[in-house]
Amino acid sequence: MPIELDALIATYEDLHRHPELGRQEHRTAGIVAEQLRALGYDVTTGVGGTGVVGVLERGQGSTVLLRADMDALPVLEATGLPYASTATATSADGETVPVMHACGHDIHTTCLLGAAAALADDDGWQGRLLLVFQPDEEGGGGAQAMVDDGLFERFGTPDVVLGQHVAPVPVGVLGVRSGPAFAASDSLRITLHGAGGHGSRPEATVDPVVMGASLVQRLQTVVSRDVAATDTVVVTVGSFHAGVAPNVIPDNAVLGLSIRTTDERVRASVLAAVERMVRAEALAAGAPKEPEIEVRDSFPPVVNDAAACEQVREAFTDAARWIVVDPGPVTGSEDVGVLAEAAGAPCAYWLLGGADPALFEGATTIEEIRNVVADLPSNHSPRYAPLAGPTLESGVAALVTAARAWLA
Amino acid sequence: MPIELDALIATYEDLHRHPELGRQEHRTAGIVAEQLRALGYDVTTGVGGTGVVGVLERGQGSTVLLRADMDALPVLEATGLPYASTATATSADGETVPVMHACGHDIHTTCLLGAAAALADDDGWQGRLLLVFQPDEEGGGGAQAMVDDGLFERFGTPDVVLGQHVAPVPVGVLGVRSGPAFAASDSLRITLHGAGGHGSRPEATVDPVVMGASLVQRLQTVVSRDVAATDTVVVTVGSFHAGVAPNVIPDNAVLGLSIRTTDERVRASVLAAVERMVRAEALAAGAPKEPEIEVRDSFPPVVNDAAACEQVREAFTDAARWIVVDPGPVTGSEDVGVLAEAAGAPCAYWLLGGADPALFEGATTIEEIRNVVADLPSNHSPRYAPLAGPTLESGVAALVTAARAWLA
Amino acid sequence: MPIELDALIATYEDLHRHPELGRQEHRTAGIVAEQLRALGYDVTTGVGGTGVVGVLERGQGSTVLLRADMDALPVLEATGLPYASTATATSADGETVPVMHACGHDIHTTCLLGAAAALADDDGWQGRLLLVFQPDEEGGGGAQAMVDDGLFERFGTPDVVLGQHVAPVPVGVLGVRSGPAFAASDSLRITLHGAGGHGSRPEATVDPVVMGASLVQRLQTVVSRDVAATDTVVVTVGSFHAGVAPNVIPDNAVLGLSIRTTDERVRASVLAAVERMVRAEALAAGAPKEPEIEVRDSFPPVVNDAAACEQVREAFTDAARWIVVDPGPVTGSEDVGVLAEAAGAPCAYWLLGGADPALFEGATTIEEIRNVVADLPSNHSPRYAPLAGPTLESGVAALVTAARAWLA
Amino acid sequence: MPIELDALIATYEDLHRHPELGRQEHRTAGIVAEQLRALGYDVTTGVGGTGVVGVLERGQGSTVLLRADMDALPVLEATGLPYASTATATSADGETVPVMHACGHDIHTTCLLGAAAALADDDGWQGRLLLVFQPDEEGGGGAQAMVDDGLFERFGTPDVVLGQHVAPVPVGVLGVRSGPAFAASDSLRITLHGAGGHGSRPEATVDPVVMGASLVQRLQTVVSRDVAATDTVVVTVGSFHAGVAPNVIPDNAVLGLSIRTTDERVRASVLAAVERMVRAEALAAGAPKEPEIEVRDSFPPVVNDAAACEQVREAFTDAARWIVVDPGPVTGSEDVGVLAEAAGAPCAYWLLGGADPALFEGATTIEEIRNVVADLPSNHSPRYAPLAGPTLESGVAALVTAARAWLA
Repeated sequence: MPIELDALIATYEDLHRHPELGRQEHRTAGIVAEQLRALGYDVTTGVGGTGVVGVLERGQGSTVLLRADMDALPVLEATGLPYASTATATSADGETVPVMHACGHDIHTTCLLGAAAALADDDGWQGRLLLVFQPDEEGGGGAQAMVDDGLFERFGTPDVVLGQHVAPVPVGVLGVRSGPAFAASDSLRITLHGAGGHGSRPEATVDPVVMGASLVQRLQTVVSRDVAATDTVVVTVGSFHAGVAPNVIPDNAVLGLSIRTTDERVRASVLAAVERMVRAEALAAGAPKEPEIEVRDSFPPVVNDAAACEQVREAFTDAARWIVVDPGPVTGSEDVGVLAEAAGAPCAYWLLGGADPALFEGATTIEEIRNVVADLPSNHSPRYAPLAGPTLESGVAALVTAARAWLA
Repeated sequence: MPIELDALIATYEDLHRHPELGRQEHRTAGIVAEQLRALGYDVTTGVGGTGVVGVLERGQGSTVLLRADMDALPVLEATGLPYASTATATSADGETVPVMHACGHDIHTTCLLGAAAALADDDGWQGRLLLVFQPDEEGGGGAQAMVDDGLFERFGTPDVVLGQHVAPVPVGVLGVRSGPAFAASDSLRITLHGAGGHGSRPEATVDPVVMGASLVQRLQTVVSRDVAATDTVVVTVGSFHAGVAPNVIPDNAVLGLSIRTTDERVRASVLAAVERMVRAEALAAGAPKEPEIEVRDSFPPVVNDAAACEQVREAFTDAARWIVVDPGPVTGSEDVGVLAEAAGAPCAYWLLGGADPALFEGATTIEEIRNVVADLPSNHSPRYAPLAGPTLESGVAALVTAARAWLA
Repeated sequence: MPIELDALIATYEDLHRHPELGRQEHRTAGIVAEQLRALGYDVTTGVGGTGVVGVLERGQGSTVLLRADMDALPVLEATGLPYASTATATSADGETVPVMHACGHDIHTTCLLGAAAALADDDGWQGRLLLVFQPDEEGGGGAQAMVDDGLFERFGTPDVVLGQHVAPVPVGVLGVRSGPAFAASDSLRITLHGAGGHGSRPEATVDPVVMGASLVQRLQTVVSRDVAATDTVVVTVGSFHAGVAPNVIPDNAVLGLSIRTTDERVRASVLAAVERMVRAEALAAGAPKEPEIEVRDSFPPVVNDAAACEQVREAFTDAARWIVVDPGPVTGSEDVGVLAEAAGAPCAYWLLGGADPALFEGATTIEEIRNVVADLPSNHSPRYAPLAGPTLESGVAALVTAARAWLA
Repeated sequence: MPIELDALIATYEDLHRHPELGRQEHRTAGIVAEQLRALGYDVTTGVGGTGVVGVLERGQGSTVLLRADMDALPVLEATGLPYASTATATSADGETVPVMHACGHDIHTTCLLGAAAALADDDGWQGRLLLVFQPDEEGGGGAQAMVDDGLFERFGTPDVVLGQHVAPVPVGVLGVRSGPAFAASDSLRITLHGAGGHGSRPEATVDPVVMGASLVQRLQTVVSRDVAATDTVVVTVGSFHAGVAPNVIPDNAVLGLSIRTTDERVRASVLAAVERMVRAEALAAGAPKEPEIEVRDSFPPVVNDAAACEQVREAFTDAARWIVVDPGPVTGSEDVGVLAEAAGAPCAYWLLGGADPALFEGATTIEEIRNVVADLPSNHSPRYAPLAGPTLESGVAALVTAARAWLA
C-alpha cells in the first residue's frame, strides 16, 4: 500500500497549526498515540513526561529505534501559510509567548507516523521496531527525560538509533556524515545585577542595560579573538531583557546565551572566557552584587557511527531516488546522541532536504547552490517553511529505507 | 483643627498598597473624589480620562490651582514595608507588569487631600481653590489630557499653579528654584529590525541583539562627546527587549529611551544625534529594514516664575518651620508645566524633603549631606520609601502655606 | 608712547613660526629675555628650567605678578597662515612630533612683552612689576617647576597674580569670572598589557587593540552614567597607540587620558571609576599582566578671587573699550592657580577675545553667537588662528589696565 | 661533506642580529650573494629590488626552484637571546621602528644557504637549481616584484616550486598539506576622519579615538556573526594610532587591518562587511569627511599541488628522520604561491618544526601537544625564538631531500 500522502499532509498541517512548547506536547502526543494504536503498535504514553513509545515486533531480528521530536519554539510565525500557527503558550519563565513549529519537528513527527504506517503495512521484514516520539528537544532535556524514565529498561535496547532533521536544502537531497555531525550546545542564563533608579539620575544607579550591552559586545571577542579561526564555535545572545519603562533604570538585565562547540577543550575554554567576561563586566560597572550564570541545558555533540552511516548511505544510494551528500559538520545541536549513548548503540542521524527544488533552478555550481541556501529562511526563522508534500514523501521513504537496512 | 495625621497615614498606606498605572487610576480617583466630596468640594471625575477636579469657592479673590499626580510605575516593590505593593497590571503594550508607587505620587495625592481638608476647615481666606488630581504624569500625557478635556474652560483659569514633588532630601527641607527647574523629557521607542534565525547559524541572520548592544554603547557618546560638559543632558536606555529563547536569534530588538535636556538647542542636537546613531547602526549591521523611532511622549521643561517663586519662598520662610534651599536644576521632568502654560499662569513647583533626618545625623557639610543623599534609594528605585508621617505633615503644610500666600 | 603694533606682530609671527614644546622653550625664552633687558627689566632666565622672570621696581607700592605661558603643542598646523609652523620636535616619549602654537601661548607671551614695554614707558605708577614667562603649561608642571625653583623666595611675593587666556570669542570681549573659573585637570597614561603574536592567530595572543577599544567605549560611561548630568566632567582619550604592522598583534596599547572636573568629590569618584574600568578590562581579556596607570600631571582648578575679579572688572569697565562678560565655568584647565596658591595671593585670570568680529556679524542673540563660536576652530585645533593684530592690541591693553588697578 | 653546522649557526646569528625590513634587505642580500658565489653559483642581485637569484646547472634534468624570504618585521625583540636584535629602521610611513626577525625568515635564508652548499657539494644529481632569495614577504609584494622584474624570463621556468616555513612545533616534525594550505591575506589601512580640538571641549570636535574604538568593536562581529562558524576567517586590527597628547583631540585615527580568508566568496563578503562598518562609523559620529580605505597588499591562498606534495611526503618519509604530519589549513599567509602561479608550476610548501622538543616532553596525546604549542611564543611574537642548531640541520636536510626528489 502506498503512503497515503493526503492523510499525512493533513496530519502535518494540523500539527503545524497547533504547535506546543517542550514538555507541553500533550495534544501532539495524543495524536501520535492514537495513530500508532490504529496501526497496531503497542503504545505507551507519558514516557519522560509527554514522550510516546510505539513497539511493533515481528519474530527474530534486530531492534531498530526510529526517533522523532515533537516540540515547537517560542517564535511568532510569519510564513503567511494558510495553516500558520497563531498559538501562544506560557513559557517556563511564566511569560506568554507565541509558538511556532519553526524547526520542522512537525515534519519529523509526521514522517515517523508515515513510516510507522508503511512498515506496519510491509510484511517483508523481521525484527523489532521501537518508535520514539520525544518531547523537548529544543530545551535539550527531552531525550534524557525519556532515558531517566526507563526507556531502555522498559522497551529494550536497540541495535541502532536512526533519525533525521529537515534542512533548507532541496527536497531529494539527503546529508549523511560520519563522525561528529552536530555540535555540542550549552545554554546559559546570565543575570547582571545593577541598581535601579530614576532614568534622569543615572549617577544614583548602576545601569544594567549598559552592563548588558557592554557584555554582548565583549562576548563577540570570544569567537573573533579567543578561539582559532579553524575552530567551529558560535556564541549567540538569543535574548536580552531589561526594564519596563524608558524612564526607570531597572535593577537587572537577563541574557540568554547559546554556545556551540565541536571540541571539548575548546568548549571548556569558551565557557571560561564567557564567565571571565561576565565577572569583569560587574567589576567595570561597580555592580553591587555578583552576576549569576546558570547553565540551563547542555548537550554533547552527535557523533555518528561510521559503520552505521555507511550502511545507511548504501541503502539510500541503492534506492536510487536521492542525491546523497556529506554536509560537513553542522553547528546546530541535537539530543538524539543522548539516546544512542545511553543505549550503547550506534547512531546514524541524517539531514533531510525540505526546500522547494524550483528555487534552485539554474544553480548548478556548489557556489550557486550555497547562495540560494543562504537566502532561504533557515530553521528557527519565523519564515521557515519546508515544502510539505514532497518533503513528507521523501522523509517517510528515508526512514523506511534506513530501517529496512537493519530489518531482514 | 489640626490635620488628622492618622487618617492621612491610613490613606497614604492604602494608596501605596494599591498603586495604579497611568490612565488606569480608577480606584485612586474614586478615593480622591469621595474624600473631596465629604469635605464639601464640588467634584468632577473623569476629566482627561481618570483625572479629578475639586472646586471650593469663597467670595472674591485669586484662583489658586493646587496640583497632585496620582499614577504609579511598572516597578517591583522591594522596600519590605508592611504596606508594600504586590499589585500587577496590564501595561499599554499588553504585558503584565508589577506596579509600585516608586515616585511618591501617593505622597502628592495624600498631601493634597490633607491640604484640601485643612483649607476647607480654615475660614480665614477668600478666593477660589481649584484642586487638580492628575492622571499619567509618568507617561507625560496626563496634564495635556486634562487641558484637552477643557480643564480651564470648564473650571476657570487660575492665577497661579502650585505643586510639589517629594525628593530624597531630609523632611523639613523645601527646595524652591526660580527659572528652569525641571528638565525637558523625550521618550523614544526604537525598533531595530534584524533578520532572525537559528542561534547556531548567525551568518544566515542579522542579529538585532548585537545591533541593540552596539547602539546602547554608541548612545553613551551623546552625553560624553556630543554635548558640552556644562550642558545638562541625560540619555537613558531604560528598557531593552529582544528574543525569547537562547538558541533563536530574534527578528528585532526594542529599546526604550528617556532623554532629558534643559536647553532647546541642545535638545534638538541630542535628538538628531540619537537618530543618526540609530540609522548608522542599521547600516553597520546590514539590516534588511530601516529602524523605527517613535516619540512616545515629550514634555517641555518646568520653568518656574520668578515672582511666584519669591512669593512662595517668603511664605515658607515666614512660617519658620522649614529650611528653604535652592536645589539647582533637576534632571527629572514633570508635566505640571503643561498646566501652567495652557493656563497662561505663573508656576511655582517645589521639592518636598521626604527622607528620614536621622539618616543625616552627623552630616553637617554640604559634602557630607550629598554623600548621604547619594546612598539613599532615589525616586523610581524599587526601594524608594519616604518617611510617611513627617513627610505628609510637611507636605500638607507647604501646600496650605503656599496657597494662602495668594488667598487673602 | 603708543604700543608699536608692527613690532608686536612681528614678534608674534616669529614665535608662531617657531613653536617649542614644554620644557624646550629655549629660543622663545631667549627672545623674551632679550626684549625685557632692552626695556630695562632686571631679567633672570632658567627659572624652573626655561622660565624667565623680569622685574621692574619703582618706589613703594604693591607687587603685581603678570604671567604668560610660552609652550606649544604637538599638533600639525593646518591654518594655512603665511607664518604657519612647520616645526617638529622630539617629545618626552622620544617620538618626533609636529609642533604648533595651537593654544595661543604665543599671543600670551607677545601681549606680556607688549605690556612690559607699555608699563616701562609709563611713569605714572609706583610699585613692583614681576613678569613671569612660564614654561610647560600644557604638561601642567611649568608653574610648579618655577615655584620649586624658588620663584617667590628669589623674586618676592606678589599681592596679586594676573593673567589672561585667548579664547574663540570676538576681539573686544573680555570674560571675567569670580570663583572656580577653570577646571581641575588630570592626565593619565594607561598601558594595557596583552600578549603579541601573529595577526592570523589571535587565539595565541591577548589582543591589546581590542582591549584598548573596549576600554575607550567603557570610559564613555563615566560621563554618561557615573556622574550627575549637572556635574561638569570631561573624560577624553586624546591618544591611542598600539602596533606597527597590520599583521602583527602587538604586546600592548598605550592610551593618553585627560580628565576635567570642577569638584573634588566628583574628581575622586571619576578617577576611581577610570581605574575600576581599566582593571576590569584586563580581567575581561585575560591579560597576562596588570595594566599600568600613571598620573602624568595633575593640576587644581583655577579659583579666581572675588575681590580681585571685582577690581579687574571695574578697571576694564572704566576703560570703556571692552564688552566684559561672565563666561561661566570653563572645562579648560590652567596651572596659573599653582602660582597664586604658592604665593598665597589672590588670582584674577580672564579670557581674552581673539576671534574676528566680522565672523559674528548678524549674530545678535546669545544663541546666534554661540552658534558662531561652535563653528570656529577652538584652542588645540590644527586650524586655531586668532586675529593677530587686534587681539594683541586688546591683550596688551588688558594686562596694562589690570596691572594699573594695583599700581598706584 | 657534512653540513658545516657551526658556520650555518654563525650566519643565522648574524642575520638575526641584523634584521632588515622588506625592500631594505641590502645587507642580507649581500651576505647571500657572497656565500652563493663562493659555492660556485651564478648569482644575480637586485632582482625585484633586493632579491637574489643563484643558479647551478648540471646537465639535463628538471629545474627546481627553492625559495627563501629574507625580510624582518617592525617588532621590538624580547627574546633575551645573546644575539637578539637592537636594530631600528625607517618604515614606509616614515616612522622609526624597531626591527626583529620575528617570523623566522633568517632561518629560511640560512637553511637555503646550507642547502645550496650541500647540493653544490653533492655530485649525485642532474638538472638545474634555481635558488630564489625573495624580499618583502611580509608586505606581500616581494614575490610579485621579482616576477615583474622578469624572474622566469631571465632565469627559466621551474618544474616545481619548493619552500618551507618554520613553525612552533617540535624540531623533527614536518607538516605537508595538499590543497589550500595558507590563507589569502588582505591588509587595509583605514583612516577615520574626525575633527580635532581641545580635549576639554569634545562638543566642538568629532572624536576619532572614539570612532576608532567603536569600529574595532564592531569589526569583531564580522567573524562572530557575519560568517559561518565553519568558515576560516580572521580580522585583526594590528595597529591603531591617533593623537599625540592626552589633552588634544586629534583630527583622525589610522587603523591597520589584516584579513585572512580561505574562500573567495567569503573573502568578498568579509571585505564588504568591513567597508560597510567603516562607512557606518563615520555616519554615527557625524564625521566631516568620508573615511579612507586603502588596500595595502593582498595575496592569494597558497594552494599546494597534490602530486608534488605526495612526492615530497614520500621523500621525507623515506629519509626516515622526520615525523611527517598534515597540519591542516593554516590562517597564516604566504606569497610563495605568486611564484608558482606565475611560473605555471606545481607548488609544495611545508612547515618546518623549530621548537625545542624538550618542551614537549611528557606530552603524548594530540591534546597535550596542542596545549604546549598554545603556550609557546608564536611567529610575530617579540619572544619568538626557534631552537637554532637543530632547526637549521632539519631545514637544510628537508630542502635537499625535497629537491633531490626532482633532481635525478
